[in-house]
Amino acid sequence: MSPDSEPEPEPGTLRPGGRTARVRTAVLRAAGDVLAERGVDRLDLSDVARRAEVGKTTVYRRWGSVPALVADLLVDMAEQSLPREETGSLLGDLRAGALLVQRTLADPRRGALFRAVIAAATCDARTAAALRHFYEVQVTEWAPCVEQAVARGELPAGTDPSQVVRAVSAPLYYELLTTGTAPDAPAAERAALAARAAAVAGVYVHGQRLMG
Amino acid sequence: MSPDSEPEPEPGTLRPGGRTARVRTAVLRAAGDVLAERGVDRLDLSDVARRAEVGKTTVYRRWGSVPALVADLLVDMAEQSLPREETGSLLGDLRAGALLVQRTLADPRRGALFRAVIAAATCDARTAAALRHFYEVQVTEWAPCVEQAVARGELPAGTDPSQVVRAVSAPLYYELLTTGTAPDAPAAERAALAARAAAVAGVYVHGQRLMG
Repeated sequence: MSPDSEPEPEPGTLRPGGRTARVRTAVLRAAGDVLAERGVDRLDLSDVARRAEVGKTTVYRRWGSVPALVADLLVDMAEQSLPREETGSLLGDLRAGALLVQRTLADPRRGALFRAVIAAATCDARTAAALRHFYEVQVTEWAPCVEQAVARGELPAGTDPSQVVRAVSAPLYYELLTTGTAPDAPAAERAALAARAAAVAGVYVHGQRLMG
Repeated sequence: MSPDSEPEPEPGTLRPGGRTARVRTAVLRAAGDVLAERGVDRLDLSDVARRAEVGKTTVYRRWGSVPALVADLLVDMAEQSLPREETGSLLGDLRAGALLVQRTLADPRRGALFRAVIAAATCDARTAAALRHFYEVQVTEWAPCVEQAVARGELPAGTDPSQVVRAVSAPLYYELLTTGTAPDAPAAERAALAARAAAVAGVYVHGQRLMG
Protein backbone atom coordinates (compact mmCIF):
# COMPACT_ATOMS: atom_id res chain seq x y z
CA MET A 1 0.00 0.00 0.00
CA SER A 2 1.50 3.33 -0.98
CA PRO A 3 1.80 5.86 1.84
CA ASP A 4 -0.72 8.11 0.11
CA SER A 5 -3.39 5.60 -0.89
CA GLU A 6 -5.73 5.77 2.11
CA PRO A 7 -8.45 8.40 2.37
CA GLU A 8 -7.19 11.52 4.12
CA PRO A 9 -9.21 12.44 7.21
CA GLU A 10 -8.97 15.73 9.07
CA PRO A 11 -5.73 15.73 11.09
CA GLY A 12 -6.05 13.56 14.16
CA THR A 13 -9.69 12.55 13.73
CA LEU A 14 -9.12 8.94 12.73
CA ARG A 15 -7.85 6.05 14.83
CA PRO A 16 -5.73 7.82 17.45
CA GLY A 17 -2.53 5.82 17.77
CA GLY A 18 -2.97 4.50 14.23
CA ARG A 19 -1.12 5.53 11.09
CA THR A 20 -2.90 8.88 10.87
CA ALA A 21 -1.77 9.82 14.37
CA ARG A 22 1.77 8.55 13.76
CA VAL A 23 2.07 10.56 10.56
CA ARG A 24 0.80 13.68 12.32
CA THR A 25 3.26 13.20 15.19
CA ALA A 26 6.19 12.75 12.79
CA VAL A 27 5.20 15.70 10.60
CA LEU A 28 4.58 18.08 13.53
CA ARG A 29 7.87 17.00 15.15
CA ALA A 30 9.72 17.76 11.90
CA ALA A 31 7.87 21.06 11.44
CA GLY A 32 8.79 22.07 14.99
CA ASP A 33 12.43 21.16 14.37
CA VAL A 34 12.59 23.27 11.21
CA LEU A 35 10.83 26.20 12.90
CA ALA A 36 13.19 26.08 15.89
CA GLU A 37 16.31 25.74 13.74
CA ARG A 38 15.53 28.05 10.87
CA GLY A 39 12.35 30.04 11.47
CA VAL A 40 9.08 30.10 9.59
CA ASP A 41 10.55 31.67 6.43
CA ARG A 42 12.49 28.48 5.73
CA LEU A 43 9.61 26.15 6.56
CA ASP A 44 8.85 24.15 3.42
CA LEU A 45 6.32 21.32 3.23
CA SER A 46 8.59 19.14 1.05
CA ASP A 47 11.46 19.53 3.49
CA VAL A 48 9.15 18.65 6.41
CA ALA A 49 7.91 15.54 4.55
CA ARG A 50 11.50 14.42 3.91
CA ARG A 51 12.52 14.92 7.54
CA ALA A 52 9.38 13.18 8.79
CA GLU A 53 9.90 10.33 6.31
CA VAL A 54 6.34 10.79 5.14
CA GLY A 55 5.12 11.02 1.55
CA LYS A 56 5.18 14.57 0.22
CA THR A 57 1.68 14.10 -1.22
CA THR A 58 0.35 13.20 2.23
CA VAL A 59 1.76 16.39 3.73
CA TYR A 60 0.45 18.59 0.91
CA ARG A 61 -2.97 16.89 0.93
CA ARG A 62 -3.41 16.91 4.72
CA TRP A 63 -1.96 20.33 5.62
CA GLY A 64 -1.77 22.11 2.27
CA SER A 65 0.12 25.23 3.38
CA VAL A 66 2.71 26.42 5.87
CA PRO A 67 0.18 28.45 7.92
CA ALA A 68 -2.12 25.41 8.14
CA LEU A 69 0.79 23.27 9.32
CA VAL A 70 1.87 25.86 11.92
CA ALA A 71 -1.74 26.17 13.10
CA ASP A 72 -1.95 22.39 13.58
CA LEU A 73 1.37 22.42 15.41
CA LEU A 74 -0.09 24.99 17.83
CA VAL A 75 -3.19 22.81 18.33
CA ASP A 76 -0.85 19.92 19.17
CA MET A 77 1.23 22.11 21.52
CA ALA A 78 -1.96 23.12 23.34
CA GLU A 79 -3.01 19.45 23.61
CA GLN A 80 0.43 18.45 24.90
CA SER A 81 0.77 21.26 27.42
CA LEU A 82 1.19 20.13 31.01
CA PRO A 83 -1.72 20.31 33.45
CA ARG A 84 -1.36 23.03 36.05
CA GLU A 85 0.09 22.28 39.44
CA GLU A 86 -2.01 22.81 42.56
CA THR A 87 0.10 23.86 45.52
CA GLY A 88 -2.59 25.13 47.87
CA SER A 89 -1.46 28.76 47.80
CA LEU A 90 -1.72 31.48 45.18
CA LEU A 91 1.99 32.24 45.22
CA GLY A 92 2.88 28.55 44.95
CA ASP A 93 0.55 28.16 41.98
CA LEU A 94 1.77 31.33 40.23
CA ARG A 95 5.37 30.28 40.84
CA ALA A 96 4.68 26.88 39.27
CA GLY A 97 3.09 28.58 36.27
CA ALA A 98 5.96 31.07 35.94
CA LEU A 99 8.57 28.30 36.11
CA LEU A 100 6.71 26.30 33.47
CA VAL A 101 6.76 29.29 31.10
CA GLN A 102 10.36 30.18 31.99
CA ARG A 103 11.61 26.61 31.40
CA THR A 104 9.75 26.44 28.11
CA LEU A 105 11.24 29.72 26.86
CA ALA A 106 14.73 28.84 28.16
CA ASP A 107 14.70 25.43 26.46
CA PRO A 108 16.70 25.89 23.24
CA ARG A 109 14.27 24.04 20.97
CA ARG A 110 11.01 25.21 22.54
CA GLY A 111 12.22 28.80 23.08
CA ALA A 112 13.23 29.07 19.42
CA LEU A 113 9.94 27.47 18.39
CA PHE A 114 7.90 30.04 20.35
CA ARG A 115 9.91 32.92 18.90
CA ALA A 116 9.36 31.57 15.39
CA VAL A 117 5.62 31.05 15.90
CA ILE A 118 5.13 34.49 17.45
CA ALA A 119 7.07 36.04 14.55
CA ALA A 120 4.95 34.08 12.05
CA ALA A 121 1.75 35.28 13.76
CA THR A 122 2.72 38.91 13.08
CA CYS A 123 2.26 38.37 9.35
CA ASP A 124 -0.29 35.58 8.97
CA ALA A 125 -3.88 35.74 10.26
CA ARG A 126 -4.33 31.96 10.48
CA THR A 127 -1.19 31.56 12.56
CA ALA A 128 -2.28 34.52 14.72
CA ALA A 129 -5.66 32.86 15.39
CA ALA A 130 -3.97 29.55 16.27
CA LEU A 131 -1.54 31.32 18.60
CA ARG A 132 -4.40 33.17 20.31
CA HIS A 133 -6.20 29.85 20.80
CA PHE A 134 -3.02 28.30 22.24
CA TYR A 135 -2.83 31.00 24.93
CA GLU A 136 -6.59 30.78 25.62
CA VAL A 137 -6.09 27.08 26.41
CA GLN A 138 -3.26 27.94 28.82
CA VAL A 139 -5.34 30.64 30.51
CA THR A 140 -8.30 28.27 30.88
CA GLU A 141 -6.01 25.64 32.42
CA TRP A 142 -4.50 28.06 34.97
CA ALA A 143 -7.52 30.25 35.74
CA PRO A 144 -8.75 28.00 38.60
CA CYS A 145 -5.67 28.86 40.67
CA VAL A 146 -6.94 32.44 40.75
CA GLU A 147 -10.55 31.40 41.39
CA GLN A 148 -9.38 29.24 44.30
CA ALA A 149 -7.31 32.13 45.69
CA VAL A 150 -10.42 34.34 45.58
CA ALA A 151 -12.40 31.59 47.36
CA ARG A 152 -9.65 31.30 50.01
CA GLY A 153 -9.73 35.07 50.53
CA GLU A 154 -6.20 35.58 49.17
CA LEU A 155 -7.46 37.84 46.39
CA PRO A 156 -10.33 40.36 46.16
CA ALA A 157 -13.67 39.17 44.78
CA GLY A 158 -14.08 40.00 41.11
CA THR A 159 -10.41 39.42 40.26
CA ASP A 160 -10.15 38.50 36.56
CA PRO A 161 -8.34 35.14 36.42
CA SER A 162 -7.11 35.61 32.86
CA GLN A 163 -5.50 38.95 33.72
CA VAL A 164 -3.55 37.37 36.57
CA VAL A 165 -2.45 34.36 34.53
CA ARG A 166 -1.35 36.58 31.65
CA ALA A 167 0.48 38.92 34.04
CA VAL A 168 2.69 35.99 35.06
CA SER A 169 3.69 35.19 31.48
CA ALA A 170 4.04 38.74 30.12
CA PRO A 171 7.44 39.74 31.57
CA LEU A 172 8.97 36.39 30.59
CA TYR A 173 7.87 36.65 26.97
CA TYR A 174 8.75 40.36 26.87
CA GLU A 175 12.29 39.59 28.00
CA LEU A 176 12.73 36.87 25.39
CA LEU A 177 11.29 38.95 22.56
CA THR A 178 12.93 42.31 23.25
CA THR A 179 16.36 41.22 24.49
CA GLY A 180 16.70 37.84 22.76
CA THR A 181 17.75 36.40 26.13
CA ALA A 182 15.77 33.58 27.71
CA PRO A 183 14.39 34.47 31.16
CA ASP A 184 16.06 32.72 34.13
CA ALA A 185 14.59 31.27 37.35
CA PRO A 186 14.85 34.58 39.30
CA ALA A 187 12.87 36.23 36.49
CA ALA A 188 10.17 33.59 36.96
CA GLU A 189 10.14 34.28 40.69
CA ARG A 190 9.79 38.04 40.07
CA ALA A 191 6.99 37.38 37.56
CA ALA A 192 5.04 35.33 40.13
CA LEU A 193 5.63 37.82 42.96
CA ALA A 194 4.73 40.80 40.77
CA ALA A 195 1.51 39.22 39.51
CA ARG A 196 0.51 38.35 43.08
CA ALA A 197 1.31 41.85 44.39
CA ALA A 198 -0.74 43.48 41.64
CA ALA A 199 -3.63 41.05 42.06
CA VAL A 200 -3.66 41.50 45.86
CA ALA A 201 -3.74 45.30 45.31
CA GLY A 202 -6.91 44.84 43.23
CA VAL A 203 -5.41 45.81 39.88
CA TYR A 204 -7.13 42.92 38.09
CA VAL A 205 -10.60 43.34 39.60
CA HIS A 206 -13.22 43.49 36.81
CA GLY A 207 -14.31 47.02 36.08
CA GLN A 208 -11.49 48.37 38.21
CA ARG A 209 -11.85 52.17 38.41
CA LEU A 210 -8.91 54.46 37.84
CA MET A 211 -7.35 55.32 41.14
CA GLY A 212 -4.76 57.87 42.17
CA MET B 1 25.14 66.21 -9.97
CA SER B 2 23.89 62.63 -9.96
CA PRO B 3 22.26 61.51 -6.71
CA ASP B 4 25.08 59.02 -6.18
CA SER B 5 28.08 61.17 -6.99
CA GLU B 6 29.06 62.48 -3.55
CA PRO B 7 31.20 60.45 -1.16
CA GLU B 8 29.09 58.24 1.09
CA PRO B 9 29.59 58.92 4.81
CA GLU B 10 28.27 56.74 7.60
CA PRO B 11 24.53 57.32 7.93
CA GLY B 12 23.80 60.63 9.56
CA THR B 13 27.39 61.69 10.28
CA LEU B 14 27.62 64.47 7.73
CA ARG B 15 25.87 67.81 7.69
CA PRO B 16 22.72 67.15 9.71
CA GLY B 17 19.88 68.79 7.82
CA GLY B 18 21.81 68.53 4.57
CA ARG B 19 21.30 66.10 1.73
CA THR B 20 22.69 63.16 3.71
CA ALA B 21 20.15 63.70 6.46
CA ARG B 22 17.32 64.27 3.99
CA VAL B 23 18.14 61.06 2.15
CA ARG B 24 18.28 59.13 5.41
CA THR B 25 14.93 60.57 6.54
CA ALA B 26 13.27 59.64 3.24
CA VAL B 27 14.79 56.15 3.14
CA LEU B 28 13.92 55.34 6.76
CA ARG B 29 10.39 56.67 6.28
CA ALA B 30 9.95 54.43 3.23
CA ALA B 31 11.51 51.44 5.04
CA GLY B 32 9.13 51.96 7.97
CA ASP B 33 6.16 52.17 5.60
CA VAL B 34 7.09 48.90 3.88
CA LEU B 35 7.72 47.16 7.22
CA ALA B 36 4.38 48.33 8.62
CA GLU B 37 2.45 47.42 5.47
CA ARG B 38 4.09 44.17 4.45
CA GLY B 39 6.56 42.95 7.08
CA VAL B 40 10.29 42.41 6.92
CA ASP B 41 10.09 39.51 4.44
CA ARG B 42 8.91 41.87 1.74
CA LEU B 43 11.40 44.61 2.55
CA ASP B 44 13.56 45.11 -0.53
CA LEU B 45 16.20 47.84 -0.87
CA SER B 46 15.24 48.64 -4.49
CA ASP B 47 11.60 49.05 -3.50
CA VAL B 48 12.61 51.33 -0.60
CA ALA B 49 14.78 53.44 -2.94
CA ARG B 50 11.89 53.80 -5.38
CA ARG B 51 9.43 54.81 -2.65
CA ALA B 52 11.95 57.22 -1.11
CA GLU B 53 12.74 58.68 -4.55
CA VAL B 54 16.42 58.11 -3.86
CA GLY B 55 18.97 56.47 -6.16
CA LYS B 56 19.12 52.70 -5.72
CA THR B 57 22.92 52.84 -5.68
CA THR B 58 22.82 55.26 -2.73
CA VAL B 59 20.63 52.92 -0.73
CA TYR B 60 22.75 49.86 -1.53
CA ARG B 61 26.01 51.69 -0.86
CA ARG B 62 24.88 53.36 2.37
CA TRP B 63 22.87 50.55 3.99
CA GLY B 64 23.89 47.50 1.97
CA SER B 65 21.41 45.00 3.45
CA VAL B 66 17.93 44.74 4.92
CA PRO B 67 19.21 44.04 8.48
CA ALA B 68 21.50 47.09 8.28
CA LEU B 69 18.57 49.23 7.13
CA VAL B 70 16.29 47.92 9.90
CA ALA B 71 19.07 48.49 12.46
CA ASP B 72 19.44 52.11 11.30
CA LEU B 73 15.66 52.54 11.45
CA LEU B 74 15.76 51.41 15.10
CA VAL B 75 18.58 53.89 15.82
CA ASP B 76 16.39 56.61 14.32
CA MET B 77 13.34 55.46 16.30
CA ALA B 78 15.41 55.63 19.50
CA GLU B 79 16.60 59.16 18.58
CA GLN B 80 13.04 60.28 17.80
CA SER B 81 11.45 58.80 20.92
CA LEU B 82 9.73 61.30 23.15
CA PRO B 83 11.35 62.48 26.37
CA ARG B 84 9.70 61.12 29.49
CA GLU B 85 7.08 63.09 31.33
CA GLU B 86 7.68 64.16 34.93
CA THR B 87 4.46 64.30 36.91
CA GLY B 88 5.84 64.41 40.45
CA SER B 89 4.48 61.02 41.48
CA LEU B 90 5.52 57.48 40.64
CA LEU B 91 2.05 56.46 39.50
CA GLY B 92 1.72 59.56 37.35
CA ASP B 93 5.07 58.87 35.71
CA LEU B 94 4.37 55.16 35.16
CA ARG B 95 0.95 56.01 33.74
CA ALA B 96 2.54 58.47 31.30
CA GLY B 97 5.03 55.81 30.25
CA ALA B 98 2.33 53.15 29.88
CA LEU B 99 0.15 55.45 27.78
CA LEU B 100 3.12 56.30 25.54
CA VAL B 101 3.74 52.60 24.89
CA GLN B 102 0.02 51.84 24.52
CA ARG B 103 -0.55 54.66 22.01
CA THR B 104 2.51 53.59 20.04
CA LEU B 105 1.35 49.97 19.84
CA ALA B 106 -2.27 50.97 19.10
CA ASP B 107 -1.21 53.30 16.27
CA PRO B 108 -1.78 51.31 13.06
CA ARG B 109 1.54 52.22 11.42
CA ARG B 110 3.75 52.15 14.50
CA GLY B 111 2.10 49.06 15.99
CA ALA B 112 2.62 47.15 12.74
CA LEU B 113 6.19 48.46 12.56
CA PHE B 114 7.00 47.20 16.07
CA ARG B 115 5.47 43.79 15.32
CA ALA B 116 7.54 43.56 12.12
CA VAL B 117 10.78 44.59 13.82
CA ILE B 118 10.26 42.22 16.76
CA ALA B 119 9.53 39.41 14.30
CA ALA B 120 12.66 40.28 12.30
CA ALA B 121 14.76 40.26 15.48
CA THR B 122 13.81 36.62 16.11
CA CYS B 123 15.78 35.54 13.06
CA ASP B 124 18.52 38.13 12.59
CA ALA B 125 21.25 38.88 15.14
CA ARG B 126 21.93 42.41 13.89
CA THR B 127 18.27 43.37 14.13
CA ALA B 128 18.10 41.75 17.58
CA ALA B 129 21.06 43.86 18.77
CA ALA B 130 19.48 47.03 17.38
CA LEU B 131 16.17 46.21 19.04
CA ARG B 132 17.88 45.56 22.37
CA HIS B 133 19.64 48.93 22.06
CA PHE B 134 16.32 50.62 21.29
CA TYR B 135 14.81 49.33 24.53
CA GLU B 136 17.95 50.19 26.51
CA VAL B 137 17.54 53.80 25.36
CA GLN B 138 13.91 53.78 26.54
CA VAL B 139 14.84 52.29 29.91
CA THR B 140 17.62 54.88 30.39
CA GLU B 141 15.16 57.66 29.58
CA TRP B 142 12.52 56.43 32.05
CA ALA B 143 14.74 55.09 34.86
CA PRO B 144 14.91 58.46 36.68
CA CYS B 145 11.18 58.28 37.48
CA VAL B 146 11.96 55.21 39.60
CA GLU B 147 15.09 56.76 41.14
CA GLN B 148 13.05 59.85 42.09
CA ALA B 149 10.34 57.65 43.61
CA VAL B 150 12.98 55.91 45.73
CA ALA B 151 14.33 59.33 46.78
CA ARG B 152 10.79 60.48 47.69
CA GLY B 153 10.28 57.31 49.75
CA GLU B 154 7.58 55.95 47.45
CA LEU B 155 9.64 52.82 46.69
CA PRO B 156 12.09 50.75 48.74
CA ALA B 157 15.81 51.54 48.46
CA GLY B 158 17.59 49.26 46.02
CA THR B 159 14.65 49.07 43.60
CA ASP B 160 16.01 48.30 40.12
CA PRO B 161 14.74 51.08 37.83
CA SER B 162 15.02 49.01 34.66
CA GLN B 163 12.89 46.22 36.14
CA VAL B 164 10.11 48.67 36.96
CA VAL B 165 10.24 50.41 33.58
CA ARG B 166 10.19 47.07 31.76
CA ALA B 167 7.32 45.82 33.95
CA VAL B 168 5.18 48.67 32.62
CA SER B 169 5.80 47.75 28.97
CA ALA B 170 5.70 43.95 29.26
CA PRO B 171 1.92 43.34 29.49
CA LEU B 172 1.24 45.79 26.64
CA TYR B 173 3.70 44.10 24.27
CA TYR B 174 2.58 40.65 25.42
CA GLU B 175 -1.02 41.48 24.57
CA LEU B 176 -0.10 42.76 21.11
CA LEU B 177 2.16 39.82 20.29
CA THR B 178 0.07 36.94 21.64
CA THR B 179 -3.45 38.13 20.78
CA GLY B 180 -2.72 40.37 17.80
CA THR B 181 -4.91 43.02 19.47
CA ALA B 182 -3.50 46.42 20.34
CA PRO B 183 -3.72 47.23 24.06
CA ASP B 184 -6.26 49.92 25.04
CA ALA B 185 -6.11 52.73 27.60
CA PRO B 186 -7.46 50.57 30.48
CA ALA B 187 -4.67 48.07 29.73
CA ALA B 188 -2.16 50.92 30.08
CA GLU B 189 -3.71 51.88 33.40
CA ARG B 190 -3.50 48.28 34.66
CA ALA B 191 0.13 48.08 33.49
CA ALA B 192 1.05 51.20 35.46
CA LEU B 193 -0.88 50.12 38.58
CA ALA B 194 0.55 46.58 38.45
CA ALA B 195 4.14 47.78 38.06
CA ARG B 196 3.68 50.18 40.97
CA ALA B 197 2.09 47.54 43.22
CA ALA B 198 4.91 45.07 42.53
CA ALA B 199 7.60 47.73 43.00
CA VAL B 200 6.05 48.94 46.27
CA ALA B 201 5.98 45.31 47.49
CA GLY B 202 9.75 45.13 46.91
CA VAL B 203 9.65 42.68 44.00
CA TYR B 204 12.21 44.68 42.02
CA VAL B 205 14.70 45.30 44.83
CA HIS B 206 18.20 44.21 43.70
CA GLY B 207 19.18 40.83 45.09
CA GLN B 208 15.61 40.27 46.23
CA ARG B 209 15.50 36.96 48.16
CA LEU B 210 12.83 34.38 47.47
CA MET B 211 10.00 34.90 49.85
CA GLY B 212 6.94 32.87 50.74
